[in-house]
Amino acid sequence: MLGLMQSHPLLVSSLLVHAARHHGEAEVVSQGVDGAIARASYRAVERRARSLVGGLSGLGIAPHDRVGTLAWNSQRHLEIYCGVQGMRAVCHTINPRLHAEDVAWIINHAGDRVLMADLSFVPLVEAVAPLVGSSVQAVVMLCPPEQMPAVALPEGMALLCYETLIEAGEAAGEAYQWPVFDENSAGVLCYTSGTTGRPKGVLYSHRSTVLHALGVNMPDALGFRAVDRVMPVVPMFHVNAWGMPYAALLAGASLVMPGRHLDGASLARLMNAERVTITAGVPTVWLGLLEHLRASGERLDHTRRIIIGGSACPALLIEAFPVEYGVPVEHAWGMTELSPIGTFNKPKPAQAALDPEAHRQHLLKQGRAVFGVDMRIVGADGAALAWDGVQFGDLQVRGPWVCSAYYGEAPGSALDGEGWFATGDVATICPQGFMHIVDRSKDVIKSGGEWISSIALENLAMSHPAVAEAAVISARHPKWDERPLLLVRAAAGQPIDTAELMRSLSGQVPRWWLPDAILVVDELPHTATGKLQKTVLRAAYGDTLMKLAEA
Amino acid sequence: MLGLMQSHPLLVSSLLVHAARHHGEAEVVSQGVDGAIARASYRAVERRARSLVGGLSGLGIAPHDRVGTLAWNSQRHLEIYCGVQGMRAVCHTINPRLHAEDVAWIINHAGDRVLMADLSFVPLVEAVAPLVGSSVQAVVMLCPPEQMPAVALPEGMALLCYETLIEAGEAAGEAYQWPVFDENSAGVLCYTSGTTGRPKGVLYSHRSTVLHALGVNMPDALGFRAVDRVMPVVPMFHVNAWGMPYAALLAGASLVMPGRHLDGASLARLMNAERVTITAGVPTVWLGLLEHLRASGERLDHTRRIIIGGSACPALLIEAFPVEYGVPVEHAWGMTELSPIGTFNKPKPAQAALDPEAHRQHLLKQGRAVFGVDMRIVGADGAALAWDGVQFGDLQVRGPWVCSAYYGEAPGSALDGEGWFATGDVATICPQGFMHIVDRSKDVIKSGGEWISSIALENLAMSHPAVAEAAVISARHPKWDERPLLLVRAAAGQPIDTAELMRSLSGQVPRWWLPDAILVVDELPHTATGKLQKTVLRAAYGDTLMKLAEA
Repeated sequence: MLGLMQSHPLLVSSLLVHAARHHGEAEVVSQGVDGAIARASYRAVERRARSLVGGLSGLGIAPHDRVGTLAWNSQRHLEIYCGVQGMRAVCHTINPRLHAEDVAWIINHAGDRVLMADLSFVPLVEAVAPLVGSSVQAVVMLCPPEQMPAVALPEGMALLCYETLIEAGEAAGEAYQWPVFDENSAGVLCYTSGTTGRPKGVLYSHRSTVLHALGVNMPDALGFRAVDRVMPVVPMFHVNAWGMPYAALLAGASLVMPGRHLDGASLARLMNAERVTITAGVPTVWLGLLEHLRASGERLDHTRRIIIGGSACPALLIEAFPVEYGVPVEHAWGMTELSPIGTFNKPKPAQAALDPEAHRQHLLKQGRAVFGVDMRIVGADGAALAWDGVQFGDLQVRGPWVCSAYYGEAPGSALDGEGWFATGDVATICPQGFMHIVDRSKDVIKSGGEWISSIALENLAMSHPAVAEAAVISARHPKWDERPLLLVRAAAGQPIDTAELMRSLSGQVPRWWLPDAILVVDELPHTATGKLQKTVLRAAYGDTLMKLAEA
Repeated sequence: MLGLMQSHPLLVSSLLVHAARHHGEAEVVSQGVDGAIARASYRAVERRARSLVGGLSGLGIAPHDRVGTLAWNSQRHLEIYCGVQGMRAVCHTINPRLHAEDVAWIINHAGDRVLMADLSFVPLVEAVAPLVGSSVQAVVMLCPPEQMPAVALPEGMALLCYETLIEAGEAAGEAYQWPVFDENSAGVLCYTSGTTGRPKGVLYSHRSTVLHALGVNMPDALGFRAVDRVMPVVPMFHVNAWGMPYAALLAGASLVMPGRHLDGASLARLMNAERVTITAGVPTVWLGLLEHLRASGERLDHTRRIIIGGSACPALLIEAFPVEYGVPVEHAWGMTELSPIGTFNKPKPAQAALDPEAHRQHLLKQGRAVFGVDMRIVGADGAALAWDGVQFGDLQVRGPWVCSAYYGEAPGSALDGEGWFATGDVATICPQGFMHIVDRSKDVIKSGGEWISSIALENLAMSHPAVAEAAVISARHPKWDERPLLLVRAAAGQPIDTAELMRSLSGQVPRWWLPDAILVVDELPHTATGKLQKTVLRAAYGDTLMKLAEA
């Protein structure tokens, strides 16, 4: 027996239409590449998105075609998000911080037919264009005609102007009705910037995106209201800007788009001038803002909440913003494969009873599962571990906005037999369901079936005054399979006594966590974004303990 | 091209499982029929719901079977909601305030195989049982064995005890896995208590119920958080208790179930003893609470919000609770056919600029559309009217939790050609999208193509000191088709001068709104629930103006 309710597919266009009909006066404020402020109502954005469909249709773009974007957060990027998906094409948001070769590889893999690019990406476009001639037929610059730059493109690749395209599509857009289609249709394609191997594409559906918007706009997650003015600092090319554009449309909250101006001074100015109530981004951005506020003496006049995710939140931020600026900081966790939000650290009744220090420790956890995401931790044998806040294991997730396979691969191929997706993180979960990431799966040390957190050991080592930087890797071991090896770089003028360092670690961790050896090195290898390259270290030092055992 | 995300159907069991896994320690507090307080965690409720499935399966209940409930708000009713739907059977919530004959008609129409009843409904069960012998095979009393009452049932209809059923199902429940099935499957059946004709059944699907729970738990609607303790005063037999049980499971909010004790003193005691933060119900209940608080001097120590719906909220409540008790009152609107929530009166930025009197008037509006519900107003010709806050027309809605047809009828049969459902209400919508109900469609006066609100005229007439009660009906008119006729009952010892009353009305409404005649009557007819019976008045007085014209 089926229910007798109306069948309306969950489509991204329904978010835009809701905003235009019921919050038509709410606005999108955009800071352009040149710093100029532009304003448009949701009513205008919806009308322009229809004109965009008219313009793209004129170029021959059809349902299922991919449209690539190289763009900052802006009104135009929002129009592309909604217009491209609304016509059942696929919006492919490209991370412009990747190397040109990787960008080209991604564009070719996605088969993008058109590229939409902000003015600041002309050099990148010129580097990429010769490598993607087979699929890309046109580059559309996100500007009015009078700002059109010269862009060197290969023969056969057209250079177009976004505002001219919108104008060309106006007549068709006037009468356009957003089509109704299968909610499982692809809507957005976003590649992970995987640290190993080629980037992999995650292909969101309209259903997953709308359910994510609903799920993450609960009061215990993003929680946007119509009176809010939301500034997404995390880029729209980075996992849907954490779903904020969609959640804002759903709630009728106004959006304040910072463009490319993400330094502390620019953010503070925009937050105060545009009365931003909620903002979200990665820790680095907020460290920059904090530094600027402390130096300038400026305040945050309207901001009620700062949401932090993307990587573990430093304790400094969790303490400084509430105490010095009266703005609570909220920790969230997610990943590209999760649309991205999985957990949010919002209180349960028990948190009210924590003393201040326990509360600070609690806020460092990544949070509890939002409805729509289920999670568990499993040990090396794949069996689920208890939620005791102590045991840690591989974090797995499942739910309607978790990916099932990467672009080009068979549905379900990214999952295990029970439908779980392995996040690649290692975490604990406390009895109240708060998850805390302790390591990456590939970095955790598996010592005779028991796991040791490399990050916990590194943090301890770095608290020693003589240590400037520390890396803990798993080194092969004849008896325990893997044991921790600690590599340290000395602080300037502070020679390291490894025996003394080992003594300082003992007592602070279980005895069997202590590294089997400590090596002092001159330099530790890093990726372009500043992360430790543990693969390089494992290649160089992975056999150290075997050699010691043989010796 | 389809997305590559996981496919998880939206099932009611997923709400319960989420609550048990991620909010296992949150609790359901139930005030029994006898006033005793019982507590259970969501973890326990989920386990008992599985045992219930085991017990019902033992009785032969299978997917698609209907299970009727005659029950107050309680933990057991929540277990039935979730267990029955979780096994893919249909939970049929019956309004025990209807006449026994209507209850029997509904049970026969639904084809209920089992009835679950609270102890206070033994007389009703005994009255109904002889009339429903063809489908109902057992009556399950919601109590432990030691409280089992004597109930006179027809031969062949078994009398069972709920706690015994749970115990019988425990072993089967232990290993039970909630089945995964089509999210469009029927989950709950609820009959409208239509004022005309037979009750009509609305058959919610799992999909509509889960989407409703997500949509109405936005911060600008119910907005439950894990730290909330929610008391649904509106009964679970009345349109899913407005979706609150589901929203609480989703948010991990604790539930405080008042049972049958809905008088002001009982509610105040429970709200303070159980630290209720949010509650919701019809205006009558809150008038009772207000009266009790004023008389007793008690305060509301923990309550942050009172949500009012079900019928238009009196200005008294909107003013008294915030001013006297510091608790804001929020106005919402919905109906059985909408699961039920359609609109919620939460502020937009513009409301901050209203002066106090304009703000009070604003709060009397039913609110703006929740994402998931679209609405419009149409004139007599079916054309959409402008949202100017002045013009009023028939209110129509559509969306994934709006009904498409009544139980037993063809899908789509309750909709017009464009998929809109006519609510039977007449409303204005202001430019900001706030809807205000001005009349029922069948009561509005259609005067030469222009509409006049009977309710607005009645309210004006009743503000005259000599008028105890007023009714405005549409009377047939030779030129204008319909014109307003005002019937008034005089206040004790206050003879009514109709000419003077007419003069007092003029100036307060457009000239053409003034009634064509005023009749003073001794008595106005009412329904059992105290509403004016305008059908009776139209039958008696509908030709008054025609006769006057002939005379």
